Amino acid sequence: MEMNIALLPGDGIGPEVIAQAVKVVNAIGKKFGHNISYKEGLVGACAIDATGDPYPDATHEICAGSDAVLFGAIGDPKYDNDPKAKVRPEQGLLRMRQKLGLFANVRPTFTFPSLVHKSPLKLDRVDGVDFVFFRELTGGVYFGEPRGRNEQGTKAFDTNVYSKEEIVRLARMGFEAAQGRRKLLTCVDKANVMATSRLWRETVQELAPEYPDVKVEYEFVDAVAMRLIQWPKAYDVLITENLFGDILTDEASVISGSMGLMPSASLGSKVKLFEPIHGSYPQAAGKDIANPLATVLSAAMMFDYAFGLKAEAQAISDVVNLSLAEGYVTEDIADGGKAYKTSEVGDWLAAKIL
Amino acid sequence: MEMNIALLPGDGIGPEVIAQAVKVVNAIGKKFGHNISYKEGLVGACAIDATGDPYPDATHEICAGSDAVLFGAIGDPKYDNDPKAKVRPEQGLLRMRQKLGLFANVRPTFTFPSLVHKSPLKLDRVDGVDFVFFRELTGGVYFGEPRGRNEQGTKAFDTNVYSKEEIVRLARMGFEAAQGRRKLLTCVDKANVMATSRLWRETVQELAPEYPDVKVEYEFVDAVAMRLIQWPKAYDVLITENLFGDILTDEASVISGSMGLMPSASLGSKVKLFEPIHGSYPQAAGKDIANPLATVLSAAMMFDYAFGLKAEAQAISDVVNLSLAEGYVTEDIADGGKAYKTSEVGDWLAAKIL
Ligand SMILES: CC(C)[C@H](C(=O)O)[C@@H](O)C(=O)O
Ligand SMILES: CC(C)[C@H](C(=O)O)[C@@H](O)C(=O)O
Repeated sequence: MEMNIALLPGDGIGPEVIAQAVKVVNAIGKKFGHNISYKEGLVGACAIDATGDPYPDATHEICAGSDAVLFGAIGDPKYDNDPKAKVRPEQGLLRMRQKLGLFANVRPTFTFPSLVHKSPLKLDRVDGVDFVFFRELTGGVYFGEPRGRNEQGTKAFDTNVYSKEEIVRLARMGFEAAQGRRKLLTCVDKANVMATSRLWRETVQELAPEYPDVKVEYEFVDAVAMRLIQWPKAYDVLITENLFGDILTDEASVISGSMGLMPSASLGSKVKLFEPIHGSYPQAAGKDIANPLATVLSAAMMFDYAFGLKAEAQAISDVVNLSLAEGYVTEDIADGGKAYKTSEVGDWLAAKIL
Repeated sequence: MEMNIALLPGDGIGPEVIAQAVKVVNAIGKKFGHNISYKEGLVGACAIDATGDPYPDATHEICAGSDAVLFGAIGDPKYDNDPKAKVRPEQGLLRMRQKLGLFANVRPTFTFPSLVHKSPLKLDRVDGVDFVFFRELTGGVYFGEPRGRNEQGTKAFDTNVYSKEEIVRLARMGFEAAQGRRKLLTCVDKANVMATSRLWRETVQELAPEYPDVKVEYEFVDAVAMRLIQWPKAYDVLITENLFGDILTDEASVISGSMGLMPSASLGSKVKLFEPIHGSYPQAAGKDIANPLATVLSAAMMFDYAFGLKAEAQAISDVVNLSLAEGYVTEDIADGGKAYKTSEVGDWLAAKIL
């Protein structure tokens, strides 16, 4: 197969982890006979530094012309504590999501037996956890207008807004995913307070009869924030709006003990995007110590979701499991054993595939 | 001292737990020579059922004329899954907060040595946790206008809005609390996305020089949702807006293993309100099995925060600790030992005080 992949390494450790994913993708290409070409684009703080724009048109063209985007991470502390900064790296990310039509962020949470002891939760709570969030990614308070300040600057406001269609298309993805899993869908909202949440709940209630095999539960976001920690095994598929999804998927990311390994996919249009859920981790940038496995597993998701190539995806998962079993891993999960460099792990994975 | 207390038992287990707090408050009154009188009001689902209004004027008059309000819980499942319901119990709660000017919700999280093993977190993560949230309670998306639907009903919107003054008064409470504690203040926001959050961060940055002994940290709400679970001991005082506070304080409530014991205070005006953080727990209503200790400890907070009576507050904490030590507790924390009824625990506590 011909594959045109856009590479967006981004900031911090982004370039280092993307480099390892590329090694793995190339090895898969070689082994399975795919013809893979890459185009690289700037995004985030590095794009601001180079062009003044966190998502330059040139980058968008590369992405829009690709089959799939592999994304590293963005964010730089120098922009975070300046609330008056006019351009922020995150704006690039948001514009990218919107312009590419990536309205669904898919974030699985699952455990690796060899890592679950690193969870902050007790083993019996988290052992075997397996759920997936479908977070709406191009609506809500992230994009709603009006937003800003009054003239004197003494008052600020944001608008959360959702249309029925935005909810329907995200919810359908959740229902379909649930049909292929344990058939439980949890709709997360704040319908006791917010008008947008009431439209979410109402819309999901209307769709539910079309999926009679799926059990639907409705829970308030505050209750889910509790129960995710208390009984994470109770969940299967969760659907929610953009801001709640931001908070809850990050909360969820720490419970398995494998945060450095969690991949994600952003879907919704022809071009799909794949990225690790961790951030740009600026303290580690350039040190060749960051864990590349989340990005490598995001590449596995890419073969599956973007190209429908399950064997290729499986081959990557297998080799990641092998690296865990043999302890060929970075220091964050080395557990007192020998720690390997980011680049060494990438080389090892690629060599094992071939 | 003369004390006029408004009692708002509310729904579900509310009346049962409030009844135990009253026994304890009366015992304290007798022992320390206070003259305590009560007026009871309806709020929540029971108020809708009786009057059509979840926060009737008569209830507001009782609260506004009191020195302090002791609140149970509200909420009834029959209203939750009807997104088109015109009147909801929660509206009563929100109107009450606003009309009484209760702009700051104070929620401590701390551990009881005898209960910390019930935490879903590993002991070393949670042992000795001690932080407190100051959640803004009368602003943000809970009250912002406009909110609602477009004419066709196909689009819904909410408005989040904050003025500088609303942020200043809440933040000052947080700074002052930090000065009396470990001198660390965490400002929780989403300043990389939301205009309101940028005003929060900017305002807190402006206030910080007035409190040179307090170290201020700024963290995004999604990062806090993670770190609360990973390193809860890292926090001291956290300040945040209404919706983030709703989600994060509930998340925080499960980490100590003592959720059934966590009290809260709502401050901001002459009349202060005290309530357990748990909900109305409708499945347990009327069974005399609910844990009354959170409500009893809320009464302790009342003596301290509303009346400045620290010895009285301490006497209540002491007797609660005694009930834990002697295992005179309800089934949720009986741990295989004998479980006592809600009413028995209340009687026991009152008797021990006298
Ligand atoms: C960087 C930030 C704008 C972004 C978001 O809030 O969506 C991030 O937290 C994420 O979840 O991808
Ligand atoms: C019942 C609901 C409206 C309320 C809130 O969201 O404030 C509750 O969750 C709380 O935290 O007191």
